[in-house]
Amino acid sequence: MYNNLLVLQSDFGLVDGAVSAMVGVALEESPTLEIHHLTHDITPYNIFEGSYRLFQTVNYWPEGTTFVSVVDPGVGSKRKSVVAKTVQNQYIVTPNNGTLSFIKKHVGIVAIREISEVENRRKNTEHSYTFHGRDVYAYTGAKLASGHITFEEVGPELDTEDIVEIPVVETTIGNDFVSGAIDILDVRFGSLWTSIRREEFYILSPEFGDRFEVTIYNNDMLVYQNQVTYGKSFADVRIGQPILYINSLYRVGLAINQGSFAKAYNVGVGAQWSIEIKRIEK
Amino acid sequence: MYNNLLVLQSDFGLVDGAVSAMVGVALEESPTLEIHHLTHDITPYNIFEGSYRLFQTVNYWPEGTTFVSVVDPGVGSKRKSVVAKTVQNQYIVTPNNGTLSFIKKHVGIVAIREISEVENRRKNTEHSYTFHGRDVYAYTGAKLASGHITFEEVGPELDTEDIVEIPVVETTIGNDFVSGAIDILDVRFGSLWTSIRREEFYILSPEFGDRFEVTIYNNDMLVYQNQVTYGKSFADVRIGQPILYINSLYRVGLAINQGSFAKAYNVGVGAQWSIEIKRIEK
Amino acid sequence: MYNNLLVLQSDFGLVDGAVSAMVGVALEESPTLEIHHLTHDITPYNIFEGSYRLFQTVNYWPEGTTFVSVVDPGVGSKRKSVVAKTVQNQYIVTPNNGTLSFIKKHVGIVAIREISEVENRRKNTEHSYTFHGRDVYAYTGAKLASGHITFEEVGPELDTEDIVEIPVVETTIGNDFVSGAIDILDVRFGSLWTSIRREEFYILSPEFGDRFEVTIYNNDMLVYQNQVTYGKSFADVRIGQPILYINSLYRVGLAINQGSFAKAYNVGVGAQWSIEIKRIEK
Repeated sequence: MYNNLLVLQSDFGLVDGAVSAMVGVALEESPTLEIHHLTHDITPYNIFEGSYRLFQTVNYWPEGTTFVSVVDPGVGSKRKSVVAKTVQNQYIVTPNNGTLSFIKKHVGIVAIREISEVENRRKNTEHSYTFHGRDVYAYTGAKLASGHITFEEVGPELDTEDIVEIPVVETTIGNDFVSGAIDILDVRFGSLWTSIRREEFYILSPEFGDRFEVTIYNNDMLVYQNQVTYGKSFADVRIGQPILYINSLYRVGLAINQGSFAKAYNVGVGAQWSIEIKRIEK
Repeated sequence: MYNNLLVLQSDFGLVDGAVSAMVGVALEESPTLEIHHLTHDITPYNIFEGSYRLFQTVNYWPEGTTFVSVVDPGVGSKRKSVVAKTVQNQYIVTPNNGTLSFIKKHVGIVAIREISEVENRRKNTEHSYTFHGRDVYAYTGAKLASGHITFEEVGPELDTEDIVEIPVVETTIGNDFVSGAIDILDVRFGSLWTSIRREEFYILSPEFGDRFEVTIYNNDMLVYQNQVTYGKSFADVRIGQPILYINSLYRVGLAINQGSFAKAYNVGVGAQWSIEIKRIEK
Repeated sequence: MYNNLLVLQSDFGLVDGAVSAMVGVALEESPTLEIHHLTHDITPYNIFEGSYRLFQTVNYWPEGTTFVSVVDPGVGSKRKSVVAKTVQNQYIVTPNNGTLSFIKKHVGIVAIREISEVENRRKNTEHSYTFHGRDVYAYTGAKLASGHITFEEVGPELDTEDIVEIPVVETTIGNDFVSGAIDILDVRFGSLWTSIRREEFYILSPEFGDRFEVTIYNNDMLVYQNQVTYGKSFADVRIGQPILYINSLYRVGLAINQGSFAKAYNVGVGAQWSIEIKRIEK
């Protein structure tokens, strides 16, 4: 089931030696592992972002891939260390602190086990309390990815009901509008990625070239309201023009062609940032 | 011809999951690929920079290496997706938007083919219009690097005359001076890398320790004028002193030993930034 | 002795093509090398940091691993290029400029050899004076990591006494206090990592939950003075509270739970930043 691929994610950054120590620990467990990195630039402590980036990528990786995700503000608390097995036979090694939310909701988790620290913690690290990424997660991930342990040997099974979930905003579908939240940014380009799925938006029967009224609120405060063209890709509007589009995860996106929508209108992300897309009568 | 090495470059950054999705797609095509990264920190939409970084590195990689470079402001427009084959039997998978300029001029391209999206696009991505890096370029690059397709199977051959080129500044050689453009920075250290080649500079018969008058203009505005010592390496001048040298690409560079020339004098890059180096009578 | 693992560190950043050129050179020497990265975000010219990051990670990598570390402000000066062999049969390829300090002091170096540039410099690079990372260090590291040369073939042996060392602050142990320096930051989280070792701190017989008076000076200037709880991990104090703890390198750390101690009190690093930890009478 394992395929020797180990993918690491964290909020550790790459400025110091933390990630390298995790890689070394994994290679010490199995020198033939193929180790890759999702991102280590998750905003510190931001579990939502960590969860989203997993959701954004796991489907593009082969069956049997093992992911380690360490965004762990509660290191040293009672939060459990777990491994989830997805419907696509991938493994995710992570604290059970909300990181699995998007995977559970949009990918599917078939089973979850608690990491037994007796069996699956590096030896002689019992006095190290602050770096489970190295001592527990990378170590267990390497064991799984290399087939040195089976999923069953991770530790005792938990109920998938026990998976801690971050509340996510559901799409509201009205007569002539859909609304949802701004989940996250396509960071480098400043495009907004909303929680509204393609099929939900399609209820408005959009055609390329149609215009929609887009309204963005930060809680109750109006941040943006304007008509925006729905296009296939950025090049469908002039440089500097806004565009409504379906992004690479098949959700509604909002961008400025060769500009940054987020910077232009000071838009942030999270459940308090709502967006409404309303059909304009032709 | 292929050697199983795939090198990725983009302006996507490493903050989100875009690059990881590309890597996953490539490994799904062939799990034994060796994947490396050139840089993903190309300034967004900056085709010149992407082109230069390829030129800066391809010669140091083995014959048969496949490079994927995605700086693609025109995604979704009519710009073609291509694979270029260099004189050194390396492949470059990229939009034909200027990215190949430096490779064509300074390395040499023997053939170019358009990527057939019928054959060489990931299945079931026909409704994804904004992420060709994942759906077309990484996918095609992985097929080539693993030998699953030959260069001929990429798609129809184009004329190398069809390669879109960014205009580059030619060196002017005078009686007692050479002049050219400031192409790019050695970013971390703030050194200026000019377009003037070693052999062009050598026309002035420089010897280590000689001093030259260096003048920098931003369009018509004088930005810097001073005498600078020509040295072998930074340590040939005192800390904080400027130095004229031949950089690791055998072009003229201008640096401050353990300082940043670019920051010290607010110097930028591009065709509008010209530099003249003039022999001083001894 | 070699294990085919090559780990690269530098102050080059990942924004341009420098690191990629090093990787290419190494793979040209041996296409089957497994190449990983420690960090390339060492502060430019900061040898202390480079030395510390090596110390922070080498112990987690397998025996026989080869490390290349290039923080080389003196490139082109008389500083020697060397390979050190550690007590754990790992190799470190680096300029002899202080980078080996922490490894010598806290890990142990059994032998050191000067790199013979006749044998172990890339061919046709004799006119490139500024990029030894590519032409000497990556090249020699690749030869060692792949077993193409033995340690003895690196070049002539030097005396380990010749290893250039940065002075490091020794811990002062008083009746009811220990004091040392703030060596470095856990950058992303702003935690302070001191030079005081666990066993030195244990002389104060600390128990989890005890409070200590912590005083920080920048040279003679008082920067921080307060009572801080000694805990196992961050979650032992409330969010926003400071905590004294033993970090993942078994040294005394000082953090704010889910905050940044360094930013909160504007604390820097280096020998001039001293910290005293004093037992409070119960």
